[in-house]
Amino acid sequence: MRIDLRRWSRMGLALVALLVGTTSPRASSADEGMWLFSNLPRAYLARTYGFEPTDEWVQHLMLSSVRFNSGGSGSFVSSDGLVLTNHHVASDTIFKISTEENDYLEEGFLAKTLADEIPAPDLELNQLVSIEDVTDRVMASVASSMTADDAAKARNAVMAEIENESLEATGLRSDIVTLYGGAKYHLYRYKKYVDVRVVFAPEAAIAFFGGDADNFEYPRYCLDICLLRVYENGKPAKIDHFLSWNDSPPTEEQLVFVSGHPGRTQRGFTVDAMKYLRDTRLPFALDLLRRREIMLQQFGLQGEEQKRRAQDDLFGVQNSRKAYTGMLQGLQDPAVLEAKRSREARILASIADRPDAEEIREAFAAVAELQLRRKELIRAVGGFRTGIYGIAETLVLMGAEDAKPSADRLREFRDSNRESLEQELFSTAPLYPDLEATKLADEIARLIEWIGADDPLVVDLLEGLGPQNRAAKAIAETKLFDVQARRELAAGGPDAIAASDDPLIVMARKMQPLYRKIRSEIEQVEELERQAYVKVSEATVAFEGTSTYPDATFTLRLAFGPIRGYEEGGTKIAPWTTMGDAFAHQENHGSREPWQLPQSWIAARDRIGADVPFNFVCTADIIGGNSGSPVVNRDGEFVGIIFDGNIQSLTADYLYTETQGRAVSVHAAAIREALRKIYGAEELADSLGR
Amino acid sequence: MRIDLRRWSRMGLALVALLVGTTSPRASSADEGMWLFSNLPRAYLARTYGFEPTDEWVQHLMLSSVRFNSGGSGSFVSSDGLVLTNHHVASDTIFKISTEENDYLEEGFLAKTLADEIPAPDLELNQLVSIEDVTDRVMASVASSMTADDAAKARNAVMAEIENESLEATGLRSDIVTLYGGAKYHLYRYKKYVDVRVVFAPEAAIAFFGGDADNFEYPRYCLDICLLRVYENGKPAKIDHFLSWNDSPPTEEQLVFVSGHPGRTQRGFTVDAMKYLRDTRLPFALDLLRRREIMLQQFGLQGEEQKRRAQDDLFGVQNSRKAYTGMLQGLQDPAVLEAKRSREARILASIADRPDAEEIREAFAAVAELQLRRKELIRAVGGFRTGIYGIAETLVLMGAEDAKPSADRLREFRDSNRESLEQELFSTAPLYPDLEATKLADEIARLIEWIGADDPLVVDLLEGLGPQNRAAKAIAETKLFDVQARRELAAGGPDAIAASDDPLIVMARKMQPLYRKIRSEIEQVEELERQAYVKVSEATVAFEGTSTYPDATFTLRLAFGPIRGYEEGGTKIAPWTTMGDAFAHQENHGSREPWQLPQSWIAARDRIGADVPFNFVCTADIIGGNSGSPVVNRDGEFVGIIFDGNIQSLTADYLYTETQGRAVSVHAAAIREALRKIYGAEELADSLGR
Repeated sequence: MRIDLRRWSRMGLALVALLVGTTSPRASSADEGMWLFSNLPRAYLARTYGFEPTDEWVQHLMLSSVRFNSGGSGSFVSSDGLVLTNHHVASDTIFKISTEENDYLEEGFLAKTLADEIPAPDLELNQLVSIEDVTDRVMASVASSMTADDAAKARNAVMAEIENESLEATGLRSDIVTLYGGAKYHLYRYKKYVDVRVVFAPEAAIAFFGGDADNFEYPRYCLDICLLRVYENGKPAKIDHFLSWNDSPPTEEQLVFVSGHPGRTQRGFTVDAMKYLRDTRLPFALDLLRRREIMLQQFGLQGEEQKRRAQDDLFGVQNSRKAYTGMLQGLQDPAVLEAKRSREARILASIADRPDAEEIREAFAAVAELQLRRKELIRAVGGFRTGIYGIAETLVLMGAEDAKPSADRLREFRDSNRESLEQELFSTAPLYPDLEATKLADEIARLIEWIGADDPLVVDLLEGLGPQNRAAKAIAETKLFDVQARRELAAGGPDAIAASDDPLIVMARKMQPLYRKIRSEIEQVEELERQAYVKVSEATVAFEGTSTYPDATFTLRLAFGPIRGYEEGGTKIAPWTTMGDAFAHQENHGSREPWQLPQSWIAARDRIGADVPFNFVCTADIIGGNSGSPVVNRDGEFVGIIFDGNIQSLTADYLYTETQGRAVSVHAAAIREALRKIYGAEELADSLGR
Repeated sequence: MRIDLRRWSRMGLALVALLVGTTSPRASSADEGMWLFSNLPRAYLARTYGFEPTDEWVQHLMLSSVRFNSGGSGSFVSSDGLVLTNHHVASDTIFKISTEENDYLEEGFLAKTLADEIPAPDLELNQLVSIEDVTDRVMASVASSMTADDAAKARNAVMAEIENESLEATGLRSDIVTLYGGAKYHLYRYKKYVDVRVVFAPEAAIAFFGGDADNFEYPRYCLDICLLRVYENGKPAKIDHFLSWNDSPPTEEQLVFVSGHPGRTQRGFTVDAMKYLRDTRLPFALDLLRRREIMLQQFGLQGEEQKRRAQDDLFGVQNSRKAYTGMLQGLQDPAVLEAKRSREARILASIADRPDAEEIREAFAAVAELQLRRKELIRAVGGFRTGIYGIAETLVLMGAEDAKPSADRLREFRDSNRESLEQELFSTAPLYPDLEATKLADEIARLIEWIGADDPLVVDLLEGLGPQNRAAKAIAETKLFDVQARRELAAGGPDAIAASDDPLIVMARKMQPLYRKIRSEIEQVEELERQAYVKVSEATVAFEGTSTYPDATFTLRLAFGPIRGYEEGGTKIAPWTTMGDAFAHQENHGSREPWQLPQSWIAARDRIGADVPFNFVCTADIIGGNSGSPVVNRDGEFVGIIFDGNIQSLTADYLYTETQGRAVSVHAAAIREALRKIYGAEELADSLGR
């Protein structure tokens, strides 16, 4: 499955900026590109595919697309609020509504009536309704004479001002998106849905058939889908823009479009920034992921219930670990970086006669320099902000931030973000003390490894205990598992938080200076990178032309390409599989885990159309965050849903390739066939696309 | 199970010295101690237990004890050459004699007749026959005016000379052992057995019942045993000293003795050396182990046969990972290091008036300084020398070393070690190309992470390919899987090896300068540490008295203590379990993996004595390497075999504790009961102790 942002956020990669970096543009070729809806490659589409999208086509697809604020994509597929996404995008929600008695991840779920639909405890869905270019106003706030720190502050302030004005004027969620590495700023306005309920989820065994072994492989046989419904005022929301459904079988070379929210790409990175990825960031991230993977596996060995508690986290970690492994392997291939290096050399040669040539070279050098600072900060990545401790930390930061004017606050504490913040902070999603203690102990141990056991902060935190005992004691004594206690602390404001003797609040207070110091250093690095990348982008655009797409920013993009197989090791891989093939795949693996189809499938075998197309591949340019993106045909009809990229596509964060790299989708026909023939959800199947 | 040295060596921790460090003494208290057979705590035993071992008792136990050169312990248990050890000590041998068709690890093995016993492809067993103090001669070779480099060379040369003289005079394997951190040098002479055959192994499911989950836990229910037989001249060896067998049930507070080969302890480490363990070595080793664990798990996901191929390595890695985790947790507990720190402060205070006080303080400071050098070298640990590549590396090094006089060579290439070296080099043990390619690719990737992708050595090694493709190509093209090809290369001498175009030989030739550079730097650090620890030891002995035991050195030691339960979380843990309890344990875990007893046990349930003692705990001071050690009673009779320590004992590498820390053994009675009632090996059972 694709790496989803929600995985990063849920795993508590607090200082996630270090892992995602900033962005800058590059030119496209072939079907490459994650295009802004406000700047589609119309000429290329017309020339190559004879396709000229109308404004209505574009607008309808945009409004039918859904962003999962937790990370991931989806689409409206009915007039009464049905949202389709991947099982693995919704699995954290399914996990949160599960209990020891009702494990909906393992068993699946189907609401027989509206009344049976289960509310997600803290899910926010976004529908993009408008895009506005605010580059001039943002740029005007920063004077070239400013220090990086002042420039970052000024930029943040004007961005907060614009967002707030927009929120007040429209009532819509308003986010400024930094594009082309800081050369462009767009204001995106979203309609928010916060009452979201679970309608249908298949069993994990078929949603993730083949498990970690088959993940990122192809051919595949996964029903990686989940149906949710958005509500307004306690009723199913009435949706004007939703996708029609088209069950027709795929055809070879059929052109399809993917409308979704790719997370972060690094295609505009300089060679030095790529080397930082290769030599520091990815090896570090992999060490961290493997550490968590083993920790969660070990936790799960304690019993069936512990295994269930750790399972969803474990899926996410394994998924990221496998994806990053592929990315690093690509970067360690000398040919890949050599291609980047030679392109960069050509860009630099091309600008040699420009009056600002020195300035451009300095910008490249500045990026190189900043990678060294990133390297120094790397161990701060991914720390601590996990689960219940994250709640304590948010409360402590909020206490201090709320005393400032909104525009001066850390971004997530501004008034315009308050609703989203509180939804997370006061979520009723279950947090398990045993798992929380295990995670917290590991984070304390990591802090010791990072700043040393003799550091006064560590001595102060440990209070004479080892990490395990310290974490166990704090988890046992904290009141924060109780949502009401969180609300009361938050309501009490800065004074209440400063006075609290809750052990996790005390711990977060002690950590706060280090957290703020690191965060401010990282934001400074980012600001300086943004400034440098503006020049890098200029030079790149001057060399490669203007019709480019910006690096992905977890905002709506359009990708496209034909449904097409590929060759691997001399074998031709067919562009789609069938539902019948899933049974054959099970048998080829002796029906052992993770190749055991659920009982529902075994029982329905005779009823299922063996030839119904199940999963298919196309060349569209996608990455993590695109999970759940609708795949539509030329008529804008739903024909499938993205759920993965194959292993050859894993370099896509920094390098698109269509020789073997493919996006993997569930076909529309399989979704309806499964609902009707396996899950007895005839009515739900009929309502799709209506 | 205990961490065994064989695990370290088999995982290719080439520069293992970095992981084991040097040693120095400390005083003992209570039942603490891994005593030299030449210096037993006779007064303490007499005073505390009223036990006065005769010289015959000591000599008989020494000669009945067996060292597994691959890492681990065992004992002679019959006059016709039977050797008893742990299943997990012999599991690499069982793995090596297994095939896709006959998976003796999973299915177990029983030779019906002598003719059915299967030769181990490369196992060497050692029986210690004498100990001689050669400290004066070694010390005389080093002048205080020498540089560290010269001192190390001079010391190595005289040690090689002594070993060689001894080998020539006696025909016995002759190893000089560095004790008390370099204050004492003893010459150990061993009779070697190199024709070793497998007689009996139970199924892994009962040898390692409860798997990774139960590992290092107690109560336990494991038949972690394996019976081998040593041969001489093609016949079962006639053994004069073997242990009598005593099936009597254990009694509470019964005094028992453990005779075995603990690997390496760090009890004499200075506080700075402990901090290096805590802050650098153990975190690094854990990252490496987790990396290998995930790699092997992923490899095993490809299919049943791949799982089998990776399984034994995986057991070893998981075992080490769990043990190191426990060790690090102990070190991160402020109380543990505070105890060490305050002891060190008292030692330093006690010597303040000595004329050599400054020299002693400088020795402590030198150790601190050397930890910084170790830190710089840490990334060289554990590299590359795995499987088939290790063979190529050995051949390349041998080519160069053989051109020198024996005493000047790297230790493993000296004439006195030649037989052991060739046994490993020309082993017919299976090496699987798919697994070897996976491991080698990972080692190349680690090299890139370590010295950087732009390093000329990396560029040269990769030959334009990524690590995966590079490794796959080299593994596909090498001839070294063929033992005959290795023999021919070795026979061709330095010229043949220099001229070889075998891709792994070429790779090892390219790596050789780096390998030699790092190794020499490490040996220099070790020499300087030895010199410093001689002074540290002197000060410690002066403060704590003279009747101490030296840190463990994978040589024969005697430990002891009563059979005794303990309290945990308010619960009293009984000192032994029964065979009947194993069935209850299975049922408590719903009979799911890894708590599924093998079919042989299920079938024999009614025949097995439910009350027969199965596993038991005692307070004896053991660590990794002690696995397989015989446990004997006051009469020197075999009553059990060590196979594990509980989780509370995992600090034993640096801190013995008997409050909860326990050594875990299989009881003699269970071994005979299982052979008779479950495995139909009546005759074999009868021959034990005879």
